[in-house]
Amino acid sequence: MSVVKTLHTAGPDVVATMAQLGRNAREAAKALRTAPRKQKDAALLAAAMTIRADVDLILDANAKDMEAAKARGLTGALIDRLMLDDARIEAMAKGLEAIVALDDPVGTTITEWDMPSGLHIERRRVPLGVIGIIYESRPNVTADAGALCLKSGNAVILRGGSESFHSSRAIHTILEHGLDAAQLPSTAIQLVPTTDRAAVGEMLKGLDGTLDLLVPRGGRSLTERVTNEARVPVLGHLDGLCHVYIDKDADMEMAKKIAVNAKMRRTGICGAAETLLVDEAVAATHLPAVATALKDAGCELRGDDKARALMPDMAAATDDDWRTEYLDAIITVAVVPGVKGALDHIAKYGSQHTESIVTDNQQTADTFLTQCDSAILLHNASTQFADGGEFGMGAEIGIATGKLHARGPVGLEQLTTFKYVVRGSGQTRP
Amino acid sequence: MSVVKTLHTAGPDVVATMAQLGRNAREAAKALRTAPRKQKDAALLAAAMTIRADVDLILDANAKDMEAAKARGLTGALIDRLMLDDARIEAMAKGLEAIVALDDPVGTTITEWDMPSGLHIERRRVPLGVIGIIYESRPNVTADAGALCLKSGNAVILRGGSESFHSSRAIHTILEHGLDAAQLPSTAIQLVPTTDRAAVGEMLKGLDGTLDLLVPRGGRSLTERVTNEARVPVLGHLDGLCHVYIDKDADMEMAKKIAVNAKMRRTGICGAAETLLVDEAVAATHLPAVATALKDAGCELRGDDKARALMPDMAAATDDDWRTEYLDAIITVAVVPGVKGALDHIAKYGSQHTESIVTDNQQTADTFLTQCDSAILLHNASTQFADGGEFGMGAEIGIATGKLHARGPVGLEQLTTFKYVVRGSGQTRP
Repeated sequence: MSVVKTLHTAGPDVVATMAQLGRNAREAAKALRTAPRKQKDAALLAAAMTIRADVDLILDANAKDMEAAKARGLTGALIDRLMLDDARIEAMAKGLEAIVALDDPVGTTITEWDMPSGLHIERRRVPLGVIGIIYESRPNVTADAGALCLKSGNAVILRGGSESFHSSRAIHTILEHGLDAAQLPSTAIQLVPTTDRAAVGEMLKGLDGTLDLLVPRGGRSLTERVTNEARVPVLGHLDGLCHVYIDKDADMEMAKKIAVNAKMRRTGICGAAETLLVDEAVAATHLPAVATALKDAGCELRGDDKARALMPDMAAATDDDWRTEYLDAIITVAVVPGVKGALDHIAKYGSQHTESIVTDNQQTADTFLTQCDSAILLHNASTQFADGGEFGMGAEIGIATGKLHARGPVGLEQLTTFKYVVRGSGQTRP
Repeated sequence: MSVVKTLHTAGPDVVATMAQLGRNAREAAKALRTAPRKQKDAALLAAAMTIRADVDLILDANAKDMEAAKARGLTGALIDRLMLDDARIEAMAKGLEAIVALDDPVGTTITEWDMPSGLHIERRRVPLGVIGIIYESRPNVTADAGALCLKSGNAVILRGGSESFHSSRAIHTILEHGLDAAQLPSTAIQLVPTTDRAAVGEMLKGLDGTLDLLVPRGGRSLTERVTNEARVPVLGHLDGLCHVYIDKDADMEMAKKIAVNAKMRRTGICGAAETLLVDEAVAATHLPAVATALKDAGCELRGDDKARALMPDMAAATDDDWRTEYLDAIITVAVVPGVKGALDHIAKYGSQHTESIVTDNQQTADTFLTQCDSAILLHNASTQFADGGEFGMGAEIGIATGKLHARGPVGLEQLTTFKYVVRGSGQTRP
């Protein structure tokens, strides 16, 4: 029933296959532009239901991927990312229902005003059109990326990792059923039907002007390739090299709690802290206390000379360390001359993602919040709050580190654009 | 006194020169990020004053450019664009004062809300950082592009057309004086000190991650090159292939007025109409009337078969004609089957810039305004209102035809981004 399957049998001609996907998406986008919320939600609810009904089908497909992955010698984190079980499949269904619960941003009036000419101008939120998403092993991205694009009124072309090909196809077939059930074009969510890497190249070229946006979701190498080679706008996410700065006016207990949570709650997420900065004015007291708390939590510490003078058993941090997103239980520690010193360090080594200052001094906090050029700046809170859900945006497709269009969490609203609707009564321009 | 001049004497090493401009801009951007409105306005007012005082200096420089241009055989529109006189120089000074009068978007709270976690989240408007602008012959762009970037808190690197090199340098020197007078870094507005085209190549590469945005301002070939080759985000403006659709429920007199104004008020601007679409239901009455009004206004008409059946002296439009932005007193005329037919024609041939529907039928208007995917849609008004000033945005740097970040007029607000400022009281993430 689905175009994708027909295309799949079309064989090795990737260019033709991708061009067809592009034409399908452009057509589907027209229908989605004006599709009412009810219809989009119905598709997602039907898909969630089918996911629960077809758990075994998904598990069988996933087993094929797991087998192939093990045969190819994949291990540890990669295998874990690829693996699906009942709980993860249920989470996928719940994820779709959570997106159903979100408000539909499409068609809302962002702002409106009248002009002396008598014209009434409205800035109205509309879908972007066609989005391409290139992702790696996690098969659940197929469900939530597809759902976020649908709810925001966009047609999407999904290119999953080859290692999760069978799992993604099973999930995608279910999404198509949902679209059919809601009488939306099943081509609203398409999955690239081949693992041929040439397909990615075609997407980077924009499918003949079809793609309005490309979203890479995966490791640094993927994001860098997409950012560097794409001929279409990209919402990319590079490093999350987050800092926690402990100011001389910081509350010691709060500093400990925030530093440990920012680093250790989950070390693998982009909002995890990678560097601890301590004001030299309180280094003697605060640094050992916070460092010990981190150590007790199982974190390895690497410091600069001043930090190591206070914690001699700390390893020496190399210049590379300050630029490394460990995504692991490792943190670098530097002693800096006050908030200015912290800002200089962050400007030199940071990735403009998320930084936190711990201080009871409002003025110092404002200096930090105003002068730091990162997407998310927190005062007396953990960097691990850098998350769409924690911002009240619901599901997110990622955290954008660029400055244009979307910055920080990319949720439904960030997957839309706007147009001007201008109402007159015969006005001509003098 | 200005870095640019020093660099200019640095000679042929364009790569080193551009890298230095990049470093200067990055430094200047830091100071601009927190520069108060007063200081930015003072720089612009001082520049406006100096422009008036140094008219002769500017005219002398412009004379050099004009001479060289004529020697190179430039004529007509190109020479006119390049030419400066007292009136145009006064307009330049007034332009700066108009930008002084605009509100400073930097630091304003776009929106803020509280989360159950107790975090208070603010989305705050901040400058982009460093903007690169590549433009063609009009030397006045040096003044208004430089001023718009400064007022929005951005450092800018201007690369003017080689034909206007001397004029732009004279204007730029005056802007630097203004910056000095206001104690802002004179490197906040830099002019590429060489006409070597290699400089453009360096800007397209982003000057080692320095450029946050590139804005091409000029003809299609320039915009296309920048859009295709840039390694940094671009706010580009491609064709303004605007349509006026006259519906069966249109008021005949209004249709005439709007069609003539949309095409003929100024034929050279991107908001000028290039195609007239007439509902077949009223073609017999409305088309001859409107076409005649256009003809009487001095416009050449090219039509499809149905249009020519009603106006036999009309030339036949080729398929290319429907895709051509004439920027001249020429218009194509097609008879279409109602609003759906108009939407199909626009989807096939349009450039998603600006379209207008003339009708007294609210429902038909809503169909057009909702289903058309262009940046600006007007009901019963001329397409020539597609302008930052007419939208109440004040001066604009151009009209963006892309869908990301900015769409339509690009004014001060569109030259900014935002960051999240999050205030807590010791929150850690569960």
